[in-house]
Amino acid sequence: MKIGIIGLGLIGGSYARALFPYGYEVYGVDLNEESLNYAKEQGIISEGFTDPKDILKELDVVFLCLYPSQLKDFFKKYIMCFKEGAILSDVGGIKRKVIDAYDLYRRDDIDFVAAHPIAGKEKSGVTESDASIFKDANFIITKTPFNENDSINLIQTLAKQMGFKTVTIMTDKEHDEAISYTSQLTHVLAMALINSDQDKYHTKAIIGDSFRDLTRIANMNELLWSELFLQNKDFLLRSIHEFECALNTIKDAIEAKDIEELQSLMKKATIRRRSLDETKN
Amino acid sequence: MKIGIIGLGLIGGSYARALFPYGYEVYGVDLNEESLNYAKEQGIISEGFTDPKDILKELDVVFLCLYPSQLKDFFKKYIMCFKEGAILSDVGGIKRKVIDAYDLYRRDDIDFVAAHPIAGKEKSGVTESDASIFKDANFIITKTPFNENDSINLIQTLAKQMGFKTVTIMTDKEHDEAISYTSQLTHVLAMALINSDQDKYHTKAIIGDSFRDLTRIANMNELLWSELFLQNKDFLLRSIHEFECALNTIKDAIEAKDIEELQSLMKKATIRRRSLDETKN
Repeated sequence: MKIGIIGLGLIGGSYARALFPYGYEVYGVDLNEESLNYAKEQGIISEGFTDPKDILKELDVVFLCLYPSQLKDFFKKYIMCFKEGAILSDVGGIKRKVIDAYDLYRRDDIDFVAAHPIAGKEKSGVTESDASIFKDANFIITKTPFNENDSINLIQTLAKQMGFKTVTIMTDKEHDEAISYTSQLTHVLAMALINSDQDKYHTKAIIGDSFRDLTRIANMNELLWSELFLQNKDFLLRSIHEFECALNTIKDAIEAKDIEELQSLMKKATIRRRSLDETKN
Repeated sequence: MKIGIIGLGLIGGSYARALFPYGYEVYGVDLNEESLNYAKEQGIISEGFTDPKDILKELDVVFLCLYPSQLKDFFKKYIMCFKEGAILSDVGGIKRKVIDAYDLYRRDDIDFVAAHPIAGKEKSGVTESDASIFKDANFIITKTPFNENDSINLIQTLAKQMGFKTVTIMTDKEHDEAISYTSQLTHVLAMALINSDQDKYHTKAIIGDSFRDLTRIANMNELLWSELFLQNKDFLLRSIHEFECALNTIKDAIEAKDIEELQSLMKKATIRRRSLDETKN
């Protein structure tokens, strides 16, 4: 099986690293020759190409590891270059817009299985790639009525081989709703927390792990994340609103010095958080 | 030097663990005999006592590892039992109320150096104690006009011996203001985030490290944290308000689809977050 990785950045490079050991022929496509050379030196791709046309026709599985906004142009330009029967997938954090983009150029003899590997780092580029970020991580496949079960199964198998633990299959809308809470809202909060520092004290000298953990993802790629926020604006604004309601409940309890209510809200949070650490997934 | 630890819980036990190797005689006081036996078996205290009166008179340094609300009663009941020249310190996350409580019972021949080791775990009890939580952590001493420099220096030296990296000296009011942002607000946000889950999806299967990191401290001791929130109500409500302003700025940019503003807010957050990781403290 010949696998192509379009876009050898952090995620594309990590996909290559995670798949190469299984004996697949893995080919990389990137505009940046340095990234291709690096990946070849590292032994994580068989060959690299700067022009997708030079290899797409041979690939059985193609992972589009591009920003969501780049996919529409990619489909437009290269849709006719894919091999008959090829299975495509992507890696982005929003799904409705990406599937809409594909639908404009859909081919009946290939299958696009949109997916979201829920893993990353606060750094970018193939030199930061690391297959261990997928270890025991979650993976979402957003199924459409056009997807063949065999294609879904193949992407699921590859995800498991890469180290992902749980694969969830949902619709694009369900994905975008769920992820607006678990991923985009968390980034909004980390940003707001660090941006609300009044700079009166030497923050670094008075923080503990809690502040470090809550702001780790405030170190973010603004090109990618502004796109993810705006492309999922409807659900993200709703998730922010739901967060604000929960925050107001806590604030009201503090203002009223209602210790019982406050403790009950803390107990609720504790029970919910503990359930995330239970071994059973 | 004879050091006493009053309250052998997570922090008290960790203080004992961190100090014992330096050859100090470390004595533990706790109502719970099991905690004392455990600490003795672990070799982290020389002897344990259930009644403070049996040992206080001999102690040169006494760490009060109790909840802030317990300190007033402790001072009231045992203030006359401390050895002349003894230096006391505490470990709680709020300082104004604790110093006020001490002031009611102040003795001129002893010195209370209120302090806040910024370290912890989401678990409690001496069996969870672990000196490594102090490694390279921050430590705050809240100096009052009554404190002798020698006492401050001694507590600072012990903090460094325990592994703390940076010791900051500030007033109780400055501490409570700063910590309402770095510690209490972070706990409020973690609670609000996890409590705002609409339970529509199987959250555990669709989260990544960002959600896990942002909610880790939502697993909290409600007795301790409700006290910390309410005892620092004024500053905490202001920190929540400042956070809400920063959140509104982000929300407005999303609503207006103002990508430039959004990216500029993300860049601000990124620069601030990176500065926390620079080696120079």
